[in-house]
Amino acid sequence: MTHFSEIDFQHMHHALSLAERGSHSTWPNPRVGCVIAHGAHIVGEGWHRRAGGPHAEIFALRQAGALAKGATAYVTLEPCSHVGRTGACHQALIEAGVACVVVAHEDPFEQVDGRGIAELRDAGIEVRVGLLNAVARELNRGFLSSVKRQRPWVQLKMGMSLDGRTALNNGRSQWITGARARSDVQYWRARSAAILTGSGTVLADNPSLTVREMASAEAIAPLRVILDSQARVPGTARVFDDQAPSLHVVHEQHLPPGANAERLLGLPGNQNGLDLHALMVHLSQRGLHDVMVEAGPTLAGNLLRAGLVDELLLYVAPRLLGDLARPLVHLPELENLTHSLDFTLYEVTQLGQDLRLRLRPDQSTCTV
Amino acid sequence: MTHFSEIDFQHMHHALSLAERGSHSTWPNPRVGCVIAHGAHIVGEGWHRRAGGPHAEIFALRQAGALAKGATAYVTLEPCSHVGRTGACHQALIEAGVACVVVAHEDPFEQVDGRGIAELRDAGIEVRVGLLNAVARELNRGFLSSVKRQRPWVQLKMGMSLDGRTALNNGRSQWITGARARSDVQYWRARSAAILTGSGTVLADNPSLTVREMASAEAIAPLRVILDSQARVPGTARVFDDQAPSLHVVHEQHLPPGANAERLLGLPGNQNGLDLHALMVHLSQRGLHDVMVEAGPTLAGNLLRAGLVDELLLYVAPRLLGDLARPLVHLPELENLTHSLDFTLYEVTQLGQDLRLRLRPDQSTCTV
Repeated sequence: MTHFSEIDFQHMHHALSLAERGSHSTWPNPRVGCVIAHGAHIVGEGWHRRAGGPHAEIFALRQAGALAKGATAYVTLEPCSHVGRTGACHQALIEAGVACVVVAHEDPFEQVDGRGIAELRDAGIEVRVGLLNAVARELNRGFLSSVKRQRPWVQLKMGMSLDGRTALNNGRSQWITGARARSDVQYWRARSAAILTGSGTVLADNPSLTVREMASAEAIAPLRVILDSQARVPGTARVFDDQAPSLHVVHEQHLPPGANAERLLGLPGNQNGLDLHALMVHLSQRGLHDVMVEAGPTLAGNLLRAGLVDELLLYVAPRLLGDLARPLVHLPELENLTHSLDFTLYEVTQLGQDLRLRLRPDQSTCTV
Repeated sequence: MTHFSEIDFQHMHHALSLAERGSHSTWPNPRVGCVIAHGAHIVGEGWHRRAGGPHAEIFALRQAGALAKGATAYVTLEPCSHVGRTGACHQALIEAGVACVVVAHEDPFEQVDGRGIAELRDAGIEVRVGLLNAVARELNRGFLSSVKRQRPWVQLKMGMSLDGRTALNNGRSQWITGARARSDVQYWRARSAAILTGSGTVLADNPSLTVREMASAEAIAPLRVILDSQARVPGTARVFDDQAPSLHVVHEQHLPPGANAERLLGLPGNQNGLDLHALMVHLSQRGLHDVMVEAGPTLAGNLLRAGLVDELLLYVAPRLLGDLARPLVHLPELENLTHSLDFTLYEVTQLGQDLRLRLRPDQSTCTV
């Protein structure tokens, strides 16, 4: 077991909060922070801002200058070993003369995958790995999902009444939850690379699905992805306005020749809808590692049954709408309670009068 | 504003926990605790155990003996001024020579209603009122409800999935929630004077609705009340066994002549069911101040619409059952979201993997 001191924890914790600042802008790259220190004294810090810009280590080394010599560098992700657009970070750390590198977790990306750490060690630098590993992995759950599963990390957001209803029978749903819950949705949207919705939601509510207030000058607006198998959504819908980029996804039979693949995608599908696994592979390949879904009961049910939901973000308003109001998810009839879709409660938070539940699936019990 | 010291708070807090010990046995009487002290030093304590037995003050005075002289008595409810089955407590306090009485809240019961306090003051005793008032009122919410509203305090218990479903379409509902949630239900049942259910639940699940383990030798088994308008429930149902008392409530047209009113009650009603307000008045008059409801979507919906639910005790299991599973409550179709039944979240607790929510109605918005 590698030993870490109190000071190590403090610096890595700080490096993680630096990494966090890149949450709205680094994709397709991971979020990374770096602190360079002599004992408790910090001499340099930095975080990765945008793909194509310098990595966290480079910012920190620039600030540290000659003071990097003999220092310890705390990096939330294994330093890269490949010469990408910005040069290899392990080389910069070696040249600066750091004595020790502490890493939160290894980079499974095939061009790194342990090589960054190996080359630092070959250069005589002490490398310690695994400090605050779980926190660092959670921060880059999307990036790690794409690398390991070739699909994004998918968060399904829903707002409902106590009795699991998302709208009245006449379709009215504004507003079931309160202002604080709605503003919280903005927080999660801003941290996503893409917002996925279905044609039903767009045709019924005509939402814009944009982030009202960008977190920073570098923040990238999430891509709005509209699943529209039958190509029913008109170009005048708000999701296609110029406030943010959009991707219209239709059944491949509706794809016109010469369509711009950046904006219009054709997917295979059957009477139950488009091939959602193919969709996820496509989004992952485009570097969209964190996907938030804001959809109705049909798309939500299909994603859940396909095992494509990694987190349920559920806003619960303390009110009853009754059995004639609209249901949360469409699922086929269950014969036995052991066939239910089961989750583990990850977090409970009160937002004004509403509750926010974050739940993660117990994959092993998803037998629907 | 009456001033209370740190020591006052400590003693009243202790008196409230003594009162709490009567939770399973005092009805139709309120739960009352008493501490007699000189400064920080306690010389006597007691709580009311059962109707017909001594009041809390009498137990505490007996223990204090001659030390009661010049002491302060902390009582969670205004000492009684009427000579009931056990003598008036204000008289006993005066005779024992206590110098001061601190009361959590006044007793609105018409035979007391301020007279206990007035007579203590007339005898030259200093009386201070209102310490931990809200806690004391919560402890006797049922008793206070009966005195002030002529109906019991009603807690509606339901267990459901995340999407507000209580059973599969085929009726299977064992077990949606986990063992800790089910054992928690026992806690609330044991504190209730009556458990109310409907014929639908009895015919479908044949529950026994008993308390598995009595809290103390004095504990009284809750009365099982079965609403059965059409007199469909057979005498062989478990709710009619000899494990606990039962009250069978039918439409008055089904009431046989000479029925034992203790066990069989006839109520007026229409095609929507029995007159629930009349039922509640009856239960209150029988001294059943705390009623827990364990019922299906129809009775739950009717009670909610009638404004007869004071607390929703909701166990939420982290699983999805889908839109074909059975709904939480039947309500008429709502035209507008402002017509929903609205609640305030009173408490959120995690019980194993499940969540327990306690919610209280925003009466002003109940317009269904």
